[in-house]
Amino acid sequence: MRREPATILGIDPGSHVLGWGAVRWEGPQALSAVAFGALRVPPDLKGGARLLMIRRGVDAILARIAPDAVALEEVFYGRNFQSALTIGEVRGVCLLAAAEGGFATYGYSAAEVKAAVTGNGRAHKSQVTAMVARILRLTQPPRPADAGDALACALCHANRLTFPAAR
Amino acid sequence: MRREPATILGIDPGSHVLGWGAVRWEGPQALSAVAFGALRVPPDLKGGARLLMIRRGVDAILARIAPDAVALEEVFYGRNFQSALTIGEVRGVCLLAAAEGGFATYGYSAAEVKAAVTGNGRAHKSQVTAMVARILRLTQPPRPADAGDALACALCHANRLTFPAAR
Repeated sequence: MRREPATILGIDPGSHVLGWGAVRWEGPQALSAVAFGALRVPPDLKGGARLLMIRRGVDAILARIAPDAVALEEVFYGRNFQSALTIGEVRGVCLLAAAEGGFATYGYSAAEVKAAVTGNGRAHKSQVTAMVARILRLTQPPRPADAGDALACALCHANRLTFPAAR
Repeated sequence: MRREPATILGIDPGSHVLGWGAVRWEGPQALSAVAFGALRVPPDLKGGARLLMIRRGVDAILARIAPDAVALEEVFYGRNFQSALTIGEVRGVCLLAAAEGGFATYGYSAAEVKAAVTGNGRAHKSQVTAMVARILRLTQPPRPADAGDALACALCHANRLTFPAAR
């Protein structure tokens, strides 16, 4: 088992709201929330200006958290080609920001994240949120939901530190 | 009609090969190729490292060409969600690089590019390449094909300078 404490930043890169949440791992029974929130992009902001805003937001989060690892929630299916292009743009900006900052990134599917947090890869969103709150001993479910998803993604990566053989 | 000369950089952002080509517009009858080429990404390069390489490549092209406008070929349909994510990542990196450098970007669909260059939005690739060579008075068709596509995209934007009312 890995013994050094680690800070893990989870990111849920949506096209209009980017959820983020950082957890501190100090062992399997010592997980805590560092900070979490959501970066909202005004819907009227398009193209390069939109990505520039996301880039600056992600850079600020990376600088604030200084994570040992960045865990990105990956999307594998969706509504249509156009929405995938948009998600890809945001994902590209996040990956680029992490790479330029020298941060290691890991990708997890929604099913992996759900399974890691609830034991069930097809768990309902509300079950995931409730388990995130329980694991991190939050007095209420993390808000907004996108931040909760990002914390779940960070916990998924934390699980790999506890059980390295599982991956 | 616009009278000031302009340098237009066209970019065809593919997932493995990014074509680029710059044209100089000095009037409707005075169009010339400045430079063109393709940025190839090794297929084994993944995630952030891949986007970092694309980012550095695009930055170098922008610095070399110092365009007055960047014309991006836009993709609206494709094989599947996964390929759209990948194209979106590359597109996001290009848009971000242009925005961070303060370059204005314009998007054109493949049909718009074909129509601008050949008069037919459904023209075959070889017709487009032949017309690009003819308009720019190149002694042979631009190679690789991705660079030709990027030059066509730049010519599409040049067309808007010649006929501003058309857009």
